[in-house]
Amino acid sequence: MSLPFGVEHADPAALVLIALAVILAGAKLGGHIAERAGQPAVLGELAAGVVLGNLYHLGLGWFHPLASNGNLDMLARLGAVILLFEVGLESTVREMLVVGTRSFVVAVLGVAAPWALGWWVGALLLPNHSVYVHAFLGATLTATSVGITARVLSDLGLTRSNEARIILGAAVIDDVLGLVILAVITSFVTAANAGTTMSVGGVVFECVKATAFLAGAIIIGSKLSPRLFAATAKLRGRGVLLATALVFCFVLSALASAIGLAAIVGAYAAGLLLEEQHYRDDAKPVEHSLQELIRPISSFLVPVFFVLMGMRVDLAALLRTDVLVLAAVLTAAAIIGKQACALGAWGPGVDRISVGFGMIPRGEVGLIFANIGLALSIHGERLIDDGIYSAVVITVMATTLLTPLALKWRLGTVRSAIPAFEPASAGD
Amino acid sequence: MSLPFGVEHADPAALVLIALAVILAGAKLGGHIAERAGQPAVLGELAAGVVLGNLYHLGLGWFHPLASNGNLDMLARLGAVILLFEVGLESTVREMLVVGTRSFVVAVLGVAAPWALGWWVGALLLPNHSVYVHAFLGATLTATSVGITARVLSDLGLTRSNEARIILGAAVIDDVLGLVILAVITSFVTAANAGTTMSVGGVVFECVKATAFLAGAIIIGSKLSPRLFAATAKLRGRGVLLATALVFCFVLSALASAIGLAAIVGAYAAGLLLEEQHYRDDAKPVEHSLQELIRPISSFLVPVFFVLMGMRVDLAALLRTDVLVLAAVLTAAAIIGKQACALGAWGPGVDRISVGFGMIPRGEVGLIFANIGLALSIHGERLIDDGIYSAVVITVMATTLLTPLALKWRLGTVRSAIPAFEPASAGD
Repeated sequence: MSLPFGVEHADPAALVLIALAVILAGAKLGGHIAERAGQPAVLGELAAGVVLGNLYHLGLGWFHPLASNGNLDMLARLGAVILLFEVGLESTVREMLVVGTRSFVVAVLGVAAPWALGWWVGALLLPNHSVYVHAFLGATLTATSVGITARVLSDLGLTRSNEARIILGAAVIDDVLGLVILAVITSFVTAANAGTTMSVGGVVFECVKATAFLAGAIIIGSKLSPRLFAATAKLRGRGVLLATALVFCFVLSALASAIGLAAIVGAYAAGLLLEEQHYRDDAKPVEHSLQELIRPISSFLVPVFFVLMGMRVDLAALLRTDVLVLAAVLTAAAIIGKQACALGAWGPGVDRISVGFGMIPRGEVGLIFANIGLALSIHGERLIDDGIYSAVVITVMATTLLTPLALKWRLGTVRSAIPAFEPASAGD
Repeated sequence: MSLPFGVEHADPAALVLIALAVILAGAKLGGHIAERAGQPAVLGELAAGVVLGNLYHLGLGWFHPLASNGNLDMLARLGAVILLFEVGLESTVREMLVVGTRSFVVAVLGVAAPWALGWWVGALLLPNHSVYVHAFLGATLTATSVGITARVLSDLGLTRSNEARIILGAAVIDDVLGLVILAVITSFVTAANAGTTMSVGGVVFECVKATAFLAGAIIIGSKLSPRLFAATAKLRGRGVLLATALVFCFVLSALASAIGLAAIVGAYAAGLLLEEQHYRDDAKPVEHSLQELIRPISSFLVPVFFVLMGMRVDLAALLRTDVLVLAAVLTAAAIIGKQACALGAWGPGVDRISVGFGMIPRGEVGLIFANIGLALSIHGERLIDDGIYSAVVITVMATTLLTPLALKWRLGTVRSAIPAFEPASAGD
């Protein structure tokens, strides 16, 4: 019942406020430096977190305990939910269906190959760990970071090219596939901890459950969402549209969590199935789109997530040869694995190599997987320990660093050969 | 270090997500019903909280423990900080200086009279409680709720009238005076708990410290803020303006907290001294104003604050005669006390009674004071116990309910007699 609001000197709000100020300032400064160097801002936010989290090696220990502060952790979780909701808002269900077969084949190849390679790397370099650790390590390599790729393509003015459509469609699908894999591995771990093993039927059940949740959420949600927004559009008061969207997102997130999926799966589904025509009413035009309304909230909370992710990287782990070797091999597996995507990108005027390069970056989802692994254990063995976690974060940063360079070089070379996508058939 | 992100069923994020969904839905529904009844939305948000927090009397106990959930509590605190920052943004330092003597006199009268009356009511009805409880009870009645009055005046199209200028100016000043009183009482309590009593010098020191902080923050901040925004305007990346403003707000809030003031004093000062010209750059126009950028964040977090406030009201306390009597007498003291304001509202064409009516509503700041009192104790006696807290919340709700009715009636009657404020001399 206590709510001191800053009266006592040991005020918990004051600590969180100053931590948020440092985190936001660090994130924006890091993002600026990264963008000046031609890199995506998220890289700078991660790096700012790494710096803040490791200052204690230089005797500046004040900030270090905040990496495990419960309140900041909750704000970071909310940040991840808001981020996946926002990423979901960027696509519509129809767009996903339209991109069609090529994106699907590219996505399946781009998930299967890195997963298998990552699993194999795990088995090779971590022979003393269980098969669950190997499988989980592979899973962290599956999801492409839509944000980074989209940003590079938009910087190059190529968002309407064939390559862009294929890459973005595939990135959406491999997020979903990655989430299904995560759900399956988590169930395996839960079953193993309970002393049972999962049958083939159990695996199928988990796959069906995850896809059924997504499909169900999308089908039922698509029917419900226009009615929900039509009903709440009649409500008076400030911020009703935003509140309705947030309630929708939070309920689906909690629902996903309740059936054993990650909360972010629900957030992503909520974003995917919310479409502008559900809340646009010509008779009563809204001042701002939902994306505009969510942006300030994500500008506030998402950097908390990335800086906290960075803070959990222990630079002392870089002095360990095993971590460095794992990171290097994992990065190679991540890059080589995604080149399988090129096989699926058939068709005239499509540069297959660009598609393979465009699928390289790993980001938010990989980091979220790694964090879930930090908290999972099987027979007392943590699925992801501090060393493996640091290696995964290094892999994410390395792929993120390499993609813009590789993609700009390749698309710059072949740009003249790329025919522009025909807007007439785009359907929007 | 654990971050399960929804994998386990006991996921703390899932609980917070579903609680946030219920809180936001309740807030918007309550706000809608209140606005349909011609009342301000905040009243409906409080009422929604009272309903949610008391469902356990009907056997629906699931929601009750959330009133003391640490994560929701922190989000509510952030909501209060954001709210006071937003209220501060609505005024500028220059506007405060321009409204001048009349507003200042109205504010001083409107703080002194309710404080004295509230103190006397406390001494009368709570004779077994210490003088600190009485003084604190009086303090909860001091601050006028700018938001509610401004809303009524704007609904009536009278924001540029002489009465409106005087009322809004005075409401700003009495927030500051209320915060100074809060700081002084808190120091008294701290001194008493340490076994010492405060000398007259000590009281003067506390007043000087609080005003010096506000004045210092405003003077130094006014110089620093344009430079800070000019420097960060050069930063690349998304959301830099918003992040700079939030960092500014959080740092001043934490600073206020560090010197023993409430964090909200710092947030208010930060909002007050941030002016549009600090970040407007004609060469590089910003897409959205700071107020537009803060609004989605406050739409999300501020209802959490009000609903949680409402949830802490125990309706069972309404069955206690002492609470009901205290609430009734306190409400009378709150209304009568502010009529002293009419004495300060001299000048031709000013309806003094309207000014007195316009100062009646208590809101955010009074509730924040009551919450601070919940957490303060002197020699083991809580400054505000559950019964007193419920009485204060009832008083806030009653004054909020009565103001629009009284003000609309009075201004409707004398409207034709009010000359419009002369825009030429307004300075903006």
